[in-house]
Amino acid sequence: MKIIKYAIDLKTAATLDFIDVTEKIQEKIKEAGIISGIINIQSLHTTMAVLVNEAEPLLISDLKKLLEKLAPQTYQYAHDNFQVRTVNMCDGECRNGHAHAKAIHLPTSIMLNINKSGLELGRWQRVFAVELDRPRERQISLVIIGE
Amino acid sequence: MKIIKYAIDLKTAATLDFIDVTEKIQEKIKEAGIISGIINIQSLHTTMAVLVNEAEPLLISDLKKLLEKLAPQTYQYAHDNFQVRTVNMCDGECRNGHAHAKAIHLPTSIMLNINKSGLELGRWQRVFAVELDRPRERQISLVIIGE
Amino acid sequence: MKIIKYAIDLKTAATLDFIDVTEKIQEKIKEAGIISGIINIQSLHTTMAVLVNEAEPLLISDLKKLLEKLAPQTYQYAHDNFQVRTVNMCDGECRNGHAHAKAIHLPTSIMLNINKSGLELGRWQRVFAVELDRPRERQISLVIIGE
Repeated sequence: MKIIKYAIDLKTAATLDFIDVTEKIQEKIKEAGIISGIINIQSLHTTMAVLVNEAEPLLISDLKKLLEKLAPQTYQYAHDNFQVRTVNMCDGECRNGHAHAKAIHLPTSIMLNINKSGLELGRWQRVFAVELDRPRERQISLVIIGE
Repeated sequence: MKIIKYAIDLKTAATLDFIDVTEKIQEKIKEAGIISGIINIQSLHTTMAVLVNEAEPLLISDLKKLLEKLAPQTYQYAHDNFQVRTVNMCDGECRNGHAHAKAIHLPTSIMLNINKSGLELGRWQRVFAVELDRPRERQISLVIIGE
Repeated sequence: MKIIKYAIDLKTAATLDFIDVTEKIQEKIKEAGIISGIINIQSLHTTMAVLVNEAEPLLISDLKKLLEKLAPQTYQYAHDNFQVRTVNMCDGECRNGHAHAKAIHLPTSIMLNINKSGLELGRWQRVFAVELDRPRERQISLVIIGE
């Protein structure tokens, strides 16, 4: 049994950008030479999630609306009250309470099974990285275990 | 260390059917002969989830209501607008935007620890497959790693 | 490759207590002597979750409000109707339908990658155990696989 580590670098284009990373992950599994095993797909950010769902553009628009409704940008988050907040304040701190609030609805990491040298996915299953905050450079960490 | 793969076939009976698969999973762990390790329990569908919670029928009715409230069948999903949608359209396509929307609240896969040749579960923890769409044949993929 | 098992005992102080367990987990990884691999962090309770997010106190207050809004204590849960309920009834049974309902929004287990003898975490990522029910003694199960 082997254990192999990769990173995937991404550049998100907008708040609630859904980036289909399925093919990039498949390539890494092939590169690793793992036929059977598991892969952990982990966001390295508190305001970017990973998600398995269908790559249908109208559905993605539905899911964006739903996430916005669950944790609206218009809501007043204490995390965004920079007059009061003292912890983890950076230069140019931006209001992103909504992005953290959206994040608790979505996975930080997803473990998927590997079969026949690829992700074992159902017919419509695709893996997305979901930007919850402003667009920026992001990274996903992969660990593959198998043989 | 060994890696062993199984599938569990299910037949769901209704939308929001909660099927307790704990015993079926325990049997597979015993069959695999793994004493200590991990098991990844993965739904192979975008509209079926897996969930750990208590097997108390009234609680299950509460959770069904909550999921229906979070992503109601009565809401107009763009995914269900077959006059506009062009992607992933099948013969006899049915409105299931609500099922995908429910799915983002629940896990696609759950990793659980194995101890003493069985799932390491707390007193009330049970593993459910949750049908979010119309009743049908479904499959769960299991990968067990351990010794 | 090795597989090592640990438990972390916790004492929660209040409903919606967020306990930062990051350092305790890091210590276990060091103790295990694993340089590269994965760790599964599993709650052994149906009303305690694990979560990765930022350790900023005002943000935690936002997340508590959000969880309370999603599954309010004031809502009437069938699980709490002790005149009707017969399953899993214990001595001194308490109303905790809200805690189970909150639990479906949060992970029971989180798999994280291990790199350079520690959790591979982004800058703001911390691991929390989240008490959803009344304060009590709780336990988290850890399985580490790696080399």
